Amino acid sequence: MNDAETQFGADGRLRHCLTTEGMSGDLVREILDLTESFADVNDKAIKKVPLLRGHTVVNLFFEPSTRTRSTFELAAKRLSADVLNIEIAHSATAKGESLLDTVATLRAMQCDLFVLRHPESGAAGQVARHIGDRAHIINAGDGEHAHPTQALLDVFTIRRHKPDFANLTVAIVGDVRHSRVARSEIHALRALGTGEIRVVGPPALLPADLSGWGVQPYNDMDTGIADADVVIMLRVQKERMQGETVPGPEAYFAAWGLTPERLALARPDAMVMHPGPTNRGVEIDSRVADGPQSVILEQVTNGIAVRMAVMALITGTAPRAA
Amino acid sequence: MNDAETQFGADGRLRHCLTTEGMSGDLVREILDLTESFADVNDKAIKKVPLLRGHTVVNLFFEPSTRTRSTFELAAKRLSADVLNIEIAHSATAKGESLLDTVATLRAMQCDLFVLRHPESGAAGQVARHIGDRAHIINAGDGEHAHPTQALLDVFTIRRHKPDFANLTVAIVGDVRHSRVARSEIHALRALGTGEIRVVGPPALLPADLSGWGVQPYNDMDTGIADADVVIMLRVQKERMQGETVPGPEAYFAAWGLTPERLALARPDAMVMHPGPTNRGVEIDSRVADGPQSVILEQVTNGIAVRMAVMALITGTAPRAA
Amino acid sequence: MNDAETQFGADGRLRHCLTTEGMSGDLVREILDLTESFADVNDKAIKKVPLLRGHTVVNLFFEPSTRTRSTFELAAKRLSADVLNIEIAHSATAKGESLLDTVATLRAMQCDLFVLRHPESGAAGQVARHIGDRAHIINAGDGEHAHPTQALLDVFTIRRHKPDFANLTVAIVGDVRHSRVARSEIHALRALGTGEIRVVGPPALLPADLSGWGVQPYNDMDTGIADADVVIMLRVQKERMQGETVPGPEAYFAAWGLTPERLALARPDAMVMHPGPTNRGVEIDSRVADGPQSVILEQVTNGIAVRMAVMALITGTAPRAA
Repeated sequence: MNDAETQFGADGRLRHCLTTEGMSGDLVREILDLTESFADVNDKAIKKVPLLRGHTVVNLFFEPSTRTRSTFELAAKRLSADVLNIEIAHSATAKGESLLDTVATLRAMQCDLFVLRHPESGAAGQVARHIGDRAHIINAGDGEHAHPTQALLDVFTIRRHKPDFANLTVAIVGDVRHSRVARSEIHALRALGTGEIRVVGPPALLPADLSGWGVQPYNDMDTGIADADVVIMLRVQKERMQGETVPGPEAYFAAWGLTPERLALARPDAMVMHPGPTNRGVEIDSRVADGPQSVILEQVTNGIAVRMAVMALITGTAPRAA
Repeated sequence: MNDAETQFGADGRLRHCLTTEGMSGDLVREILDLTESFADVNDKAIKKVPLLRGHTVVNLFFEPSTRTRSTFELAAKRLSADVLNIEIAHSATAKGESLLDTVATLRAMQCDLFVLRHPESGAAGQVARHIGDRAHIINAGDGEHAHPTQALLDVFTIRRHKPDFANLTVAIVGDVRHSRVARSEIHALRALGTGEIRVVGPPALLPADLSGWGVQPYNDMDTGIADADVVIMLRVQKERMQGETVPGPEAYFAAWGLTPERLALARPDAMVMHPGPTNRGVEIDSRVADGPQSVILEQVTNGIAVRMAVMALITGTAPRAA
Repeated sequence: MNDAETQFGADGRLRHCLTTEGMSGDLVREILDLTESFADVNDKAIKKVPLLRGHTVVNLFFEPSTRTRSTFELAAKRLSADVLNIEIAHSATAKGESLLDTVATLRAMQCDLFVLRHPESGAAGQVARHIGDRAHIINAGDGEHAHPTQALLDVFTIRRHKPDFANLTVAIVGDVRHSRVARSEIHALRALGTGEIRVVGPPALLPADLSGWGVQPYNDMDTGIADADVVIMLRVQKERMQGETVPGPEAYFAAWGLTPERLALARPDAMVMHPGPTNRGVEIDSRVADGPQSVILEQVTNGIAVRMAVMALITGTAPRAA
């Protein structure tokens, strides 16, 4: 069973959040609608609802990420869950078996919800297929495979500004090939019927075979973002920029960095997005990152609410729509 | 005053949990009965009781152990305590005085309950003798001396399956000599009047002098586990297996590893236990660790409840039996 | 705008706690009075008040300090806040911009109160000037600049024993030059109208220019603490004691260590204070640190209450005086 199937229970309800692949438009919209209600909670002085009181959420991170861990930790605490943070250096563990042993042990401690980040693609799905009936998995990033909550917060942020997805052109710029974020975004955008999805970057950073992706490739930045409604910049790993097939940081910025001048090629009201943390001066100019078209900090804010919504939905504790 | 005495208050009630040595059968049974009530709590969707609300529990670990720390952290949080996690690399501190200074400082912060893991035998007792009247210590492992909550969860697990201790044969297999777990198990098993307790392993890994231990030594695996009702496998530290007096991992597994074939020598309904984490293929075969006679994950589950019971008992917040 | 101004809102109320510099005696007394009410909370079995329920407190530490982090974590938890602990190795971050980016991201997660420790003087004030209207900063130590909550807990501790500041002689002994604690203490003591404030140490460890400090320098220990009512010992960093301008540990102790013999030169009821952790045998003799005149552990206890008071005051959640 693949992850797109694994995440649904026998009753057809979402019980894990592994990937946006195969999610219907209706399901994505249900999640975004639920997110709206949690966005209100986070705007209050008392940011707390009792939905997960007495539940235990584990942040199980085999890759360190203070930022992502913090968003899940805050989402869980604002749902009143008990939170356990566990960071394990991947090098210190044997692969595969050890992951399942670790999860089985934590499950035996009656942990209810696992937020898993792991460097291997497919790790979260593998755990979900072994975890049993009463626990839930959220994939917080597995290798180059998927990062569904990031994609959901991105489409939530887009919808708040530009809800008519059928008439949107979205450009995703940078290292699409190795990016779990881009993969999950493309699935979510397609589920919502996005008009046009472009992937923009040097050939070495775009997938070799894009058949079936439903996207248009661009190897030129200026044409790639021309008239786009949304420009999503990806973080470029410095280790990719060895100067052979991908230029070094300065040359990368010259060719692919989002400057105010380049951004002027997109629609005048184009939104600028980035999953963070940004490499200023590498993939994005500070004037754009901090400029009026940037919604980067809004994405962070929405990230808490979308994670609260996903946690509530998969555990069956979300308030029912009227 | 030795630890067995130190852990009792002037009124004869348990106020620290330092060692199972000297605990009466009645006291062990009181703890196990209380554990039963907390086992129910952990089985519910809302795993939370307010007994330690407003109390502060410190996990003070001078040896890293994510697994053990997690069980105490969850136990404390499910009792509604505030939890402070502190991990200190032992090498970074001067010995003795520094431990007492650290504890005195945390006590001055009105921490109520200290869960202490320390590489030196006797550390927890030393702290208990200095801590004053209003704080409580749980020994979460001190050197090669004691690990009482592990022993209590083990006898709890045994009792749930085989409550007639007088008619049980329990074999403890592996590095008994250096094991605080084995020491504490033997005391707890004896307190409950266990029929026969065997220690099984190569001579280099059994205590040189067993007089007064109340156990039978076996230097042969097959006879050691023959007709046993309970087989407790100990984790073997790789650094012990240097090949001189203790064989390397493959040879160790050949001589002492618990395989399905060997397990067939024990009683047909023999329970297989392990304090975890297991070294699969070193002291235990995966087919046994994951097999129908294994209660290893049950031990983990019971570990939360027994720690909740001990925390409630020593702080005087446990509900009184009717 | 300097930090002394930045910490006040347009309405003149304290909204950040950056420095004791410029705090009026009335404000310091208001904080100390509020601290008295929280000191009572910490003395109870249930050490919990709901003032910050649903608020999020971040401990953002760019210098590791388990001890200081613990005091703020406990203060926040006893106010019922959700707490996020983030420790960032300073070397791993670019300076300035990165700090502001990190804080902006956490602010976007609707964190309400930031407890910041940073190796650069002025870091907390810089953050406060960028954070916007609804968040609050507590400076938990910035370079050699300020550590206001330490100073406030010190004057609170003094006031409980010797409330008549106008008639007190306070000696601050040790590395005053590099000490953010000493700077903040001097401002707080002056705000309360302390009769005489002395700084005592070798010339290399006293500020080169003391004009405007309102303190008397002493380069001799015996005369510096003679007839003092309060002796505050500072922690001496071992890396300062290179033997050129500052002697090594043994010689330092001989010249500047607080022994029972030296303490006899102060008033018979002189209080001995230290911000901790102490270097026993370097700046202080164990007989003094643990002796009847020492209030070092009282300082730790008061540190929780003063941090609760500051958190409640700047967030506007403190109960109003009748």
